[in-house]
Amino acid sequence: MSPPGRAPRDDRPPAPAPLPAGAPPAPREIRSRANPTYQRLRRLAHEPAAYRREGAVWLEGEHLCQEAVQRGRRARLAVIDEAAWAQPARRALAQTAEAVLCLPAPLMAGLSAMDSAPPIAFELPWSAPAGLRPGRPTVVLDRLQDAGNVGTLLRSAAAFGFEQVVALGGTAALWSPKVLRAGMGAHFALHLVEQAGPEALDGLGLPLLATSSHAPEAIDAVPLPWPCAWLLGHEGQGLAPALQARATRCLRIPQPGGLESLNVAAAASVCFYESARQRGRAGPG
Amino acid sequence: MSPPGRAPRDDRPPAPAPLPAGAPPAPREIRSRANPTYQRLRRLAHEPAAYRREGAVWLEGEHLCQEAVQRGRRARLAVIDEAAWAQPARRALAQTAEAVLCLPAPLMAGLSAMDSAPPIAFELPWSAPAGLRPGRPTVVLDRLQDAGNVGTLLRSAAAFGFEQVVALGGTAALWSPKVLRAGMGAHFALHLVEQAGPEALDGLGLPLLATSSHAPEAIDAVPLPWPCAWLLGHEGQGLAPALQARATRCLRIPQPGGLESLNVAAAASVCFYESARQRGRAGPG
Repeated sequence: MSPPGRAPRDDRPPAPAPLPAGAPPAPREIRSRANPTYQRLRRLAHEPAAYRREGAVWLEGEHLCQEAVQRGRRARLAVIDEAAWAQPARRALAQTAEAVLCLPAPLMAGLSAMDSAPPIAFELPWSAPAGLRPGRPTVVLDRLQDAGNVGTLLRSAAAFGFEQVVALGGTAALWSPKVLRAGMGAHFALHLVEQAGPEALDGLGLPLLATSSHAPEAIDAVPLPWPCAWLLGHEGQGLAPALQARATRCLRIPQPGGLESLNVAAAASVCFYESARQRGRAGPG
Repeated sequence: MSPPGRAPRDDRPPAPAPLPAGAPPAPREIRSRANPTYQRLRRLAHEPAAYRREGAVWLEGEHLCQEAVQRGRRARLAVIDEAAWAQPARRALAQTAEAVLCLPAPLMAGLSAMDSAPPIAFELPWSAPAGLRPGRPTVVLDRLQDAGNVGTLLRSAAAFGFEQVVALGGTAALWSPKVLRAGMGAHFALHLVEQAGPEALDGLGLPLLATSSHAPEAIDAVPLPWPCAWLLGHEGQGLAPALQARATRCLRIPQPGGLESLNVAAAASVCFYESARQRGRAGPG
């Protein structure tokens, strides 16, 4: 929690980048699905890991685009449907990008993988980060499959003060359009490392915490170390045994309702909360 | 949590119903999609609220079918693909039902709304429950839309000792195939009331707890009442103002990461956990 009198964090997101001087970009238009730019955008919107090849991610929807702008990111291209272009607020959001592409509604719908196409989307430059940041509060994902779970988990990680997420090989692509939608902007508040091997965890220099329903000690019955790294495993199989063996400590989430299992993102949120709660109780850190 | 020495709960699920004497049911077969039974099952599998009209719910997958059997439920019909029928364990699971329907793989695939069809599904009798149970630990859902969120939330509610979930009008259908899949069997551990009006909450006789990021008091800084009812609102809009006004107490989830928002099922899980944690700390109840 946020104790009274605590100094503001110095690592809050930067202010939005100032717009370049001069006139905002005039929109380009595309009238054919065969257009190479349209084809490229469609791959970005539909293939979960296309961003690694294309060097750009696909942000769909007004909320996500606004989050990116507020975090100081600048889109390479804003894609907006013709009706939204006629609306001043959405037009202004599109014009924060380096270039704007204006599409008729059927082409916008054909681009999106969502049931109802959003009025606006961004193509945002992306590059793989340099590597792990040792000592920072971290969440480790071991082969999580469901994009909704991963996005929900990123939101909780950011909300409860974690700064870094490490996805081990076999985890859903973190910057896929689905994970981005479920993440609701949390991506921009976190340092995200993908396709790491388990040996990378040695470089974190952190106690590694795991959960197990069979562990004798409950998460609220022991002092949780901070900073730490929480290990979260595959939806069906849990943590890989080799990773479980690396855990510094294995703890139980108390479940008075009996043997009901928890969704992995729900379980993770409870662990992150308990870390934050204990930290808050200990006074300003 | 479960304090040492606590007496076993007396409201655990009943043992599986004994199978009727005599030979297990022999499978019927269907070879055409035009078959009326096939058409009815397809509606159950595809239409989220068809169960209210048909008086039966559609459980897809081995795990969910096993959960139902372990909770003492008996399927009206088991639907199994021909390959699974040849496997003794799956055949035995199918034969717990009153009748068995064996389908060629393409017909099984045509029935399911999932990308990959499960080997087995149950048609389970369903009827609307009589009404609210006053005084039981409760979760109230106000117009939650996403089936995955609702199912995740039911799992957490059951795991942390809540006994009843009340879905107000406008909430996703609780017994839809998608919510059932995400619920992983939690449905069978809870008393579920749907399509309730806000006035029904008066009959609960419980303190109503809500969350708000603007509330001065944090959930871990005040003693939470037990039993209680947690109110959870729409993914985008939160609780309806009229419902927020009914809350006995409005509390904040401490989020040291700043203003990042939480997914509603993640936020709910944290609230349920905090209720359980405080109850555990207070000793056996």
